[in-house]
Amino acid sequence: MMLNSSQLLKKDHLKIIGLMSGTSCDGLDIALIEIETNKPVSEFKFITGQTIEYSARQRDGILKFIQSDSITLEAISQINFYLAKIWSEMIDTFLYQIRYKKNEIDLIGSHGQTLWHQPDAKLFIDSPITSTLQAGDPAVLAQLSGIPVIGDFRVADVALNGQGAPLIPYFDWIYFSPFKKNLLIVNIGGISNFTFIPSSGKLNEVLAFDCGPGNMLIDQAAQILFNKKFDLNGSLAAQGNFSDDLFEAIKKMDSFINKEPPKSTGREHYNRKFLNSVLNTTVRSQVSEKDVINTLTEYTAFSMHYNYLNFVAPMHKIDEVVLGGGGSSNKYLVKKISEYFKLTPVKFVHEYGLNEDFKEAIGFAILAHETLFGKCTNVPQVTNAKRPAILGKFCPV
Amino acid sequence: MMLNSSQLLKKDHLKIIGLMSGTSCDGLDIALIEIETNKPVSEFKFITGQTIEYSARQRDGILKFIQSDSITLEAISQINFYLAKIWSEMIDTFLYQIRYKKNEIDLIGSHGQTLWHQPDAKLFIDSPITSTLQAGDPAVLAQLSGIPVIGDFRVADVALNGQGAPLIPYFDWIYFSPFKKNLLIVNIGGISNFTFIPSSGKLNEVLAFDCGPGNMLIDQAAQILFNKKFDLNGSLAAQGNFSDDLFEAIKKMDSFINKEPPKSTGREHYNRKFLNSVLNTTVRSQVSEKDVINTLTEYTAFSMHYNYLNFVAPMHKIDEVVLGGGGSSNKYLVKKISEYFKLTPVKFVHEYGLNEDFKEAIGFAILAHETLFGKCTNVPQVTNAKRPAILGKFCPV
Repeated sequence: MMLNSSQLLKKDHLKIIGLMSGTSCDGLDIALIEIETNKPVSEFKFITGQTIEYSARQRDGILKFIQSDSITLEAISQINFYLAKIWSEMIDTFLYQIRYKKNEIDLIGSHGQTLWHQPDAKLFIDSPITSTLQAGDPAVLAQLSGIPVIGDFRVADVALNGQGAPLIPYFDWIYFSPFKKNLLIVNIGGISNFTFIPSSGKLNEVLAFDCGPGNMLIDQAAQILFNKKFDLNGSLAAQGNFSDDLFEAIKKMDSFINKEPPKSTGREHYNRKFLNSVLNTTVRSQVSEKDVINTLTEYTAFSMHYNYLNFVAPMHKIDEVVLGGGGSSNKYLVKKISEYFKLTPVKFVHEYGLNEDFKEAIGFAILAHETLFGKCTNVPQVTNAKRPAILGKFCPV
Repeated sequence: MMLNSSQLLKKDHLKIIGLMSGTSCDGLDIALIEIETNKPVSEFKFITGQTIEYSARQRDGILKFIQSDSITLEAISQINFYLAKIWSEMIDTFLYQIRYKKNEIDLIGSHGQTLWHQPDAKLFIDSPITSTLQAGDPAVLAQLSGIPVIGDFRVADVALNGQGAPLIPYFDWIYFSPFKKNLLIVNIGGISNFTFIPSSGKLNEVLAFDCGPGNMLIDQAAQILFNKKFDLNGSLAAQGNFSDDLFEAIKKMDSFINKEPPKSTGREHYNRKFLNSVLNTTVRSQVSEKDVINTLTEYTAFSMHYNYLNFVAPMHKIDEVVLGGGGSSNKYLVKKISEYFKLTPVKFVHEYGLNEDFKEAIGFAILAHETLFGKCTNVPQVTNAKRPAILGKFCPV
């Protein structure tokens, strides 16, 4: 369609903005990329990115809304327009600072602010229903910015009984498959997740799932035991010793690492309760505080390798492990990962030229591009959706 | 875009389903039309229509949700998917009954179920915000039906500071302007509204606004005074006499008919309180119950003509009045309208070959078609939007 998209499809290059507003509501990640339409999508150019923070008042208002047990129809209607409005202002700021004019931007891919995500069915009125809800209406954003928007990517996958997440594996596939290696991309956030990219380049061989703890257990222990936000560079871990007892206790408690993919987890599993239970099972006097950090770090590395052995290795031998996310700067963790993966080289996402800070924002710019060209971007074996789908809603101006 | 829409744009005829789910939540109006793409849009063919009622359990569940003072994010997320699911099942039923296959349908235009509509700004967090919210996610409907959907038409107009309503004047313009007459289309529902269609065919000369009471005052008086749901054929009115006192009392109380367009009203104005106040101002003993019905009917006709004189006639002389809506079967009302408009012929919408029962559903099928072809379908002088906009979100499959 439409006037807009027909024109867009004819252009020899497209400048696309990707937007990501995460669950922490700190701000909006904005990435600007350029794609030459006669080249492979993977050769897109990352022009620049910026995270624009919400004002304290905005953040408080949004968080208060999201955390409310009960809301009104009025409030949900209003926040959907409100977020689009402030994002459009943030795009103005971004473009002004990088000295771009609006009419130089062809398209926006917007994730939206997740308000609810329920991939597991629950009875509603008379039917079992799964759903997902993102606010920050893409049609409002299109009208206010004057730029066509594709948004609401997760909806179609959930409609097809998919988990609606993760969606980034498609981007990983676009980005890494041209290297023609079997790559295990490990993103170490609070939780760690895998994306396996096959050297064959076949999308239907891509695997992706949460594999276990990332920084979450280490960070919490650093807070409880050392009053530190995290174990900088893994230096605490490096000073401790490994405790076999503690390690076995964690392993025994952690059912998640044995679960078959697709699987996902979060703060509801590797939380303080989990950590306290673990700490209570071992004789604290025999394990120093640094030993705890050391052993949790070892366990974190182990859980990655364990998942690899059980759920990737039976199908695919990997050429490289490629680490990303905040946890990839924990040197002790990286050392342990390297030890577990033995002869397999361990590299970093930035060595592949990807700007990690804006990976998700870039990802949604790429998804918008793919939707524009009628490509399916959910990965059914990853999300468990019934079939591939073109994700997102196109909102013309 | 996209695969879907590029293919659609190439077809020489399109079969489009229009869906309307009104605020009463009785059921879903489904209309099927066919448009030959090498002919004017106005020559679309209405194939058939059906209203599929919600089950009692569905209707109660939806109404309860809409009327709740407080809801949860979970419930809003779920109802958005739920409605799309049951509509997709209703479309299955409809297509089965009319012996059409799904792959014969090219596109769906879906209005959605309005949950909230707030065209007047209200402070939200730190900004004055207007908004509108329709549930029944068009991307879910697209995936479940396997048919591309364009939905959420009102959003873009509200984003441009428009009222987001009425949207049907664009359809009226498509339908009636080929007759090349200055037509005053009067839709007599609970409220009456005008659409003026210029013989010039110029969209920017179209006028549309609520002009005053339709059946609302007459129906309420019939209920209070005669315990009847409405004045069938206007027979009660025909048996009464006109009361000048009562007429003047109503006129004095009714500020709405003097308001400059664009204007809209509803049950919040012509309600029982209004009617009671009117009845109390007159000496009841001198006015029989039938006189009340007679005079309210006269006032209803008067208010149409009054609005015409003040807000249409200064710019345009009309060739015909064209009546539609439930009130057009009130013979006494029609007689009075004819008297007020004197030499101007008074006709009916069905004389122009339009199936009124499915007018709105047909309207959203037409709007979807126009959006597909990149046409703006809000009428800024009607909605007060800052500028014309392509309405709706395109959801591919």
